[in-house]
Amino acid sequence: MALSEALKRKAVQLAKLTVRMTAEAGSGHPSSALSLAHVVTALMYRQMRYDPADPWHPTCDRLVLSEGHAVPIVYAALADLSATVGKDRASALRLTPGHLDRLRCLDSVLDGHPNPAEGVPFFDAATGSLGQGLSVAAGLALAARLDRSDRRIYVLIGDGESREGQVWEALDFIVDCRLTNVCAVFNANGEGQAGKVSPQQHPERLLAKLRAFGWRAIEVDGHDPAALLRAFRKVSRTDRPLAVVARTVKGWGVEPLQRGNWHGRPLTEAELAEADLSLEKIAAGLAPGGKLGRPPQPPPAATAQRVDPRGVSWPSFDEAMAAAGLSSQLEKGRLATRRGYGVALKVAGDLLPQVVVLDGDVSNSTFSEIFARAHPDRFFECKIAEQNMVSTAAGLAAAGFIPFVNSFAKFISRALDQVEMANISRANLKLVGSHSGISPAADGPSQMGLLDVAFFRGLTTVRADNRREPLCWLFHPADAVAAYHCTRLMVEHRGLCYMRTHRPDTPILYPADTSFRPGGFHVLAGGDDLAIVTWGYAVHAAKEAVNFLSRQKLRAALIDAYSLPLDESELVETLHRAGGRVLVVEDNFGGGLGAAVAEVAARSGNLRVEILHCQRIPKSARNAEELLDYCGIGPAQIADHALALLRRPG
Amino acid sequence: MALSEALKRKAVQLAKLTVRMTAEAGSGHPSSALSLAHVVTALMYRQMRYDPADPWHPTCDRLVLSEGHAVPIVYAALADLSATVGKDRASALRLTPGHLDRLRCLDSVLDGHPNPAEGVPFFDAATGSLGQGLSVAAGLALAARLDRSDRRIYVLIGDGESREGQVWEALDFIVDCRLTNVCAVFNANGEGQAGKVSPQQHPERLLAKLRAFGWRAIEVDGHDPAALLRAFRKVSRTDRPLAVVARTVKGWGVEPLQRGNWHGRPLTEAELAEADLSLEKIAAGLAPGGKLGRPPQPPPAATAQRVDPRGVSWPSFDEAMAAAGLSSQLEKGRLATRRGYGVALKVAGDLLPQVVVLDGDVSNSTFSEIFARAHPDRFFECKIAEQNMVSTAAGLAAAGFIPFVNSFAKFISRALDQVEMANISRANLKLVGSHSGISPAADGPSQMGLLDVAFFRGLTTVRADNRREPLCWLFHPADAVAAYHCTRLMVEHRGLCYMRTHRPDTPILYPADTSFRPGGFHVLAGGDDLAIVTWGYAVHAAKEAVNFLSRQKLRAALIDAYSLPLDESELVETLHRAGGRVLVVEDNFGGGLGAAVAEVAARSGNLRVEILHCQRIPKSARNAEELLDYCGIGPAQIADHALALLRRPG
Repeated sequence: MALSEALKRKAVQLAKLTVRMTAEAGSGHPSSALSLAHVVTALMYRQMRYDPADPWHPTCDRLVLSEGHAVPIVYAALADLSATVGKDRASALRLTPGHLDRLRCLDSVLDGHPNPAEGVPFFDAATGSLGQGLSVAAGLALAARLDRSDRRIYVLIGDGESREGQVWEALDFIVDCRLTNVCAVFNANGEGQAGKVSPQQHPERLLAKLRAFGWRAIEVDGHDPAALLRAFRKVSRTDRPLAVVARTVKGWGVEPLQRGNWHGRPLTEAELAEADLSLEKIAAGLAPGGKLGRPPQPPPAATAQRVDPRGVSWPSFDEAMAAAGLSSQLEKGRLATRRGYGVALKVAGDLLPQVVVLDGDVSNSTFSEIFARAHPDRFFECKIAEQNMVSTAAGLAAAGFIPFVNSFAKFISRALDQVEMANISRANLKLVGSHSGISPAADGPSQMGLLDVAFFRGLTTVRADNRREPLCWLFHPADAVAAYHCTRLMVEHRGLCYMRTHRPDTPILYPADTSFRPGGFHVLAGGDDLAIVTWGYAVHAAKEAVNFLSRQKLRAALIDAYSLPLDESELVETLHRAGGRVLVVEDNFGGGLGAAVAEVAARSGNLRVEILHCQRIPKSARNAEELLDYCGIGPAQIADHALALLRRPG
Repeated sequence: MALSEALKRKAVQLAKLTVRMTAEAGSGHPSSALSLAHVVTALMYRQMRYDPADPWHPTCDRLVLSEGHAVPIVYAALADLSATVGKDRASALRLTPGHLDRLRCLDSVLDGHPNPAEGVPFFDAATGSLGQGLSVAAGLALAARLDRSDRRIYVLIGDGESREGQVWEALDFIVDCRLTNVCAVFNANGEGQAGKVSPQQHPERLLAKLRAFGWRAIEVDGHDPAALLRAFRKVSRTDRPLAVVARTVKGWGVEPLQRGNWHGRPLTEAELAEADLSLEKIAAGLAPGGKLGRPPQPPPAATAQRVDPRGVSWPSFDEAMAAAGLSSQLEKGRLATRRGYGVALKVAGDLLPQVVVLDGDVSNSTFSEIFARAHPDRFFECKIAEQNMVSTAAGLAAAGFIPFVNSFAKFISRALDQVEMANISRANLKLVGSHSGISPAADGPSQMGLLDVAFFRGLTTVRADNRREPLCWLFHPADAVAAYHCTRLMVEHRGLCYMRTHRPDTPILYPADTSFRPGGFHVLAGGDDLAIVTWGYAVHAAKEAVNFLSRQKLRAALIDAYSLPLDESELVETLHRAGGRVLVVEDNFGGGLGAAVAEVAARSGNLRVEILHCQRIPKSARNAEELLDYCGIGPAQIADHALALLRRPG
């Protein structure tokens, strides 16, 4: 009872900080934040086992604020608890209530939405694009299990937010994985941004849904700390994960925020005084006594196993293929890039205990099944739910794992918003899209990744915080040897990487010990009449075109640019040596390699670049060769364009 | 009883066609198709009211095959029913069983997955990327209601597929909208691609979930036509939408397809004989008699209202603003692009009865609320579920409406896979992303569209079927006048369009009657030292830079390239007139306008292009100006880069 009153007093204190900091910032979402005042207080002062001074402590309980716009109430608690903030231990400082006035300032760690990368390591993932937090929590919970830690993961989800389908993917996944260390709290305040929350997201409906999904679901008064604590204490107590549906009031305690539906509105100076008065009146009505003390300590340290990815020695390509039983197939000279990748992934798992793999019911197509057979404890079958898969991987990455996410390139595009959010978190995430481009010919365009390159190339154009590496490395190997080595590069690089692989078996182009590096390219054939720059599946068609041209006494250099962003100065030199006329060929829509080469050329100013990418929406064809022609990028068409480029004046 | 036996015989006949056509094609998914043999037979021969000879009939019932890979069984039925296929009436022909041998051939309308655009108008939307069909059905059902037609929409969804969160978004939406003309059939065959379907998707769990979501859910034996028909007949009979969970057998009737889990495997020639035998044995066990006849006729024609979008006369910008009560704000010379758009949208709704608007709980931010107030019957609040919103819009488009989909640019990226699928369907879809770029400064990067441009620009690089228009027009207006006119252009163009709008009020740049056109640009300031090409929010910063340069006696041309793809020849001429040196400025990640200009320049060969885009992941700042500087694209930085470009040799 005394504890409950103390928590209520604390909630009032945090509410006052919340309205003040958002008024000071001139923006923010105080009304949503206030609806969580007691939930956050009960969790952060009593239920969670953690050390505010050491947010990097490996076994502390975690809080994922899925409805990220409510973050001011958490900032208030962190400031009140003198929590450590900062991008790393070296720059760490203790947060004070005074810092809260800098909410949303350029020089503040207190971003508008949770953002660990800007210096609030209490959080594991950037949130703010809704519906992703429960998946992140699933990843953190899997990580806890792998690390043999009994830390628990609490997630706060808005009622309106729970409309996002990804939440329901995560609910399924958590049950499948029996992650009873997760507690999902639904904040049922009944108000959205533009209007009321649908009856489909009302508490009674939410409870019925959660139970139908196999969760233990409890309804509580979200402003009653004692009731909240009674509910929270049921976490990990049964064989079902725990959901708490908390009935709350948007703008709790502050009447001006309850007039109409003010989603993103801060208070004026005058209203602030009114709010303070009304909150103080609430506090005055509470019984005195009760002390909160520090939050409970985190559980004992776990035995997390991490190995330096650059400190291990990889078997040669041939050794790895032999171990995978693929030597005889290799002798035929043809192997799909997806198979080279699958073998490399398994090797990565052999060498590094922190490599984990997720797949969405297509492991027998992506060949992540090779890893799954060798390391079943680190393989997570996410079923047909790509959004949850990517955000779960982001959670695993936050806990120090190196997750590889697998699907068809087309279906990776189901989760691009999640990829962006992971990128804001600077997650060490690896994505691999198989069946990329038009090579899955017979299946038709619904199975083909054609825009994946344009999207991920966008990420390669921007520098990461270190100002050296890009936000994303994009790999597009043309043969199984390249796929093997590029997988190693992905493992060794800390940060986002995306690789495209292909369905068909294709000729081996490279000696097994060829060296590959991020941003590198290989000159497969020399020539000084023009250069054909290409990557991935299109390399093989371009090679045929080069042979055709050579029969016409034209010497075309053939460049396999297997990685973006390209090493610009080296590329310019190579293209000049090849005569300064360049044809780029790729089997996806525009905005990929062609754009990258054109940008390099337009900056340098004296190169001529033509781009030949997939020219139309593909349809089914019985084989990829027919479809290359249909899409305007068959060998003969490449050769024709090369000839036209050579004939052009200037 | 006789009817049931006749349907069973028909199912066997279709099963034989299915295994044969997939064996002939050497690929396809006969096992999934066979699990639907009786469901498809009961629907297409008895339950659905439609005319196979006239798939364009406006009131016929529709079938959405959400699990698109099962399409061979539908093709078998269409061939058996001599259904009309073809891209339009002029090229239409009647399908015969002989055509089935051409499944997945380049010259066949029978694509690997449902694809109306390749000539099977029985379907309304391309499917194959899973989980989208129920949303498409919702759009078709809304369209039926708007058209006062009592046609019904049947959807076939795989059990494994129902893991996709979008399905649960659609289930909520359909209940919210009381779309009792939808019947969702879940094909519970228990087998996924890489393994068994999770218990979370087993029939009993599915039934509990569906009921918790507010649906009437019935379980049936999916190979018992009489039971299926009893269930289907309950559609539209209650105030709840109907879900049928059909227990089925993957590879029904064909033993070789039931050994192990052969998801995408066709039969060999030897197995085909075995399959025929086993199917004939099943047929032989059925009672004779019973005739199927034609499917029931479609209901009477409805009163669909469509007006030629190019045949209406728009009010002037000033008139429209005055009608919206914005004249006094306009006199201050500043107005947000999102507001110009909102007003235009309302005007479009006034002029064209087929304009409909969808928003995801942010209509008071996107300003689609201006439309909603004027045309509440054509405004659909989709709540926080963007994937369902986009696919629902695709369904509305298939029925002849012009849907405008609204959200923050960042959250439109939640549904890029759905956009791609709509594009494969050649849907007449309009997407508008507000709060694009870095201008929503204080909210931080989770609310900013930074990669939307790279993605949609990919679609602008490819030509549509008419070989003249691109697959997508991308509009990025810099002021409210431009936003107003670009909205009109989106309405008038038939096909996919994407427009970015901004949060802040920005200065009006254009006279109200300025002319805009797809692919056009405007020269806002003349100059012959260099050209600054920019668009959207960045135009204003670039304008400041131009003023700064002019004080240094440097004449920079300022070009507002408000639309992609650009008119190439005109642009090249303009850039040459401006001196041949070009600085592109945009407030998103790379791969957008800069890439487009660089490609044009690299093709022409004697222009120098530098690109200045957002240089890092943004964070919160109290105002957009601070953040422009932080991201390297403030006015002073633009001027610096212009000076550096002018100083470069060559």
